Amino acid sequence: MERRHHISQQFDAELEDVRNRVLSMGGLVEQQIIQAITALSEGDAKLAELVIDNDIKVNTAEVAIDEECTHIIARRQPAASDLRLMIAVIKTITDLERIGDQAERIARMGLRLMEKERPKNNYGELRHLGELVAAMVHDALDAFARMDIDAAIEVAKQDLKVDQEYDGVMRQALTFMMEDPRSISRMLDVMWTARAIERIGDHAKNICEYIIYLVKGKDVRHIGLEKMEKAVKS
Amino acid sequence: MERRHHISQQFDAELEDVRNRVLSMGGLVEQQIIQAITALSEGDAKLAELVIDNDIKVNTAEVAIDEECTHIIARRQPAASDLRLMIAVIKTITDLERIGDQAERIARMGLRLMEKERPKNNYGELRHLGELVAAMVHDALDAFARMDIDAAIEVAKQDLKVDQEYDGVMRQALTFMMEDPRSISRMLDVMWTARAIERIGDHAKNICEYIIYLVKGKDVRHIGLEKMEKAVKS
Repeated sequence: MERRHHISQQFDAELEDVRNRVLSMGGLVEQQIIQAITALSEGDAKLAELVIDNDIKVNTAEVAIDEECTHIIARRQPAASDLRLMIAVIKTITDLERIGDQAERIARMGLRLMEKERPKNNYGELRHLGELVAAMVHDALDAFARMDIDAAIEVAKQDLKVDQEYDGVMRQALTFMMEDPRSISRMLDVMWTARAIERIGDHAKNICEYIIYLVKGKDVRHIGLEKMEKAVKS
Repeated sequence: MERRHHISQQFDAELEDVRNRVLSMGGLVEQQIIQAITALSEGDAKLAELVIDNDIKVNTAEVAIDEECTHIIARRQPAASDLRLMIAVIKTITDLERIGDQAERIARMGLRLMEKERPKNNYGELRHLGELVAAMVHDALDAFARMDIDAAIEVAKQDLKVDQEYDGVMRQALTFMMEDPRSISRMLDVMWTARAIERIGDHAKNICEYIIYLVKGKDVRHIGLEKMEKAVKS
């Protein structure tokens, strides 16, 4: 009895450790997004380089957490909700790693844009879009930490707003290009950056779906927001 | 003894079933890519609509296989290589599902391009790029079926070729835009399509990395091709 209690305590500590590592990886990724966007909008090449260099930290975190989860599954043979936690973590960190890739891409685009003419608003529309998705990532991780499915739904809803703003940025860039073909190359960079930011929103939404899977044991991918809300309420 | 033998036979059958379902999902995804590219290059709107409609089959397959893997892990508590197979499958189908999303995107772009002026070569450069990545997906699944890590490395190498061809398509589209600003909107669609195709190559490469993880127990993500080859040989 003593021993079983001890093992279960150890197991809980291991799960807690994994959870904390995911949150810390998420914090790193969030910082990468914010720094990439700041570098771009402030024309800060050093900061952009830092983001590019730091992507390896994100990758390393993914590999390490993945390994820990596999070890835990093999050693503890968790059932039901603990196993779901492990699966949700394995999926979440894949999305976090890809968010990291997009942040790196934004930083690289920032460097390219620094060599070109700068608009008066310092790419305020990209900054705004970037802040929206950074908040989504933050809130998704928060929902993960608290296992809060209502919060997860709210974050998933935010993705609609991101898509709308993204469409606006793309339309504006297209108009710009057509009016002034000399701006084509620069506007393409703006479009690629907007696209990278928008993808981050998609990944944050994926994480929210894993949280719902984790808490409710229901797979809510590919069913649309409305059904997702229903699944959570039932 | 009898009973244990029976259980192990059942377990083997379950693993075999999962493997087959992954291959069949992969076959579906491969077909989606080829049909999307054909629809685009032949201006076949019906085929494009079919691809868009069929994406739900890809999504359904992902959710079903995911569930089966979780059940197997919970019920059979597999260790070592069997557990790695389950994890590799869970990751592989995520990439397959995202390849499916890209195929759908190509089909949608195809529909848009059908409403615009058509080039004499019927987007031969996109068709070629599409055929390259469809072959990568096919070969990656083949490597998965045979657990062939050398083949997996070969597929991963193909991604370099895809990236080169992609760069060529992008440069050409940019030149076109600059020479004839009336082509901007159409060339943007070409660029988005090329990008979707290129992403498929990345996902196929991811699948190859999971195969190496599965067979060698080594995580070869984020380390570059050269080190990946070394890891496989050691």
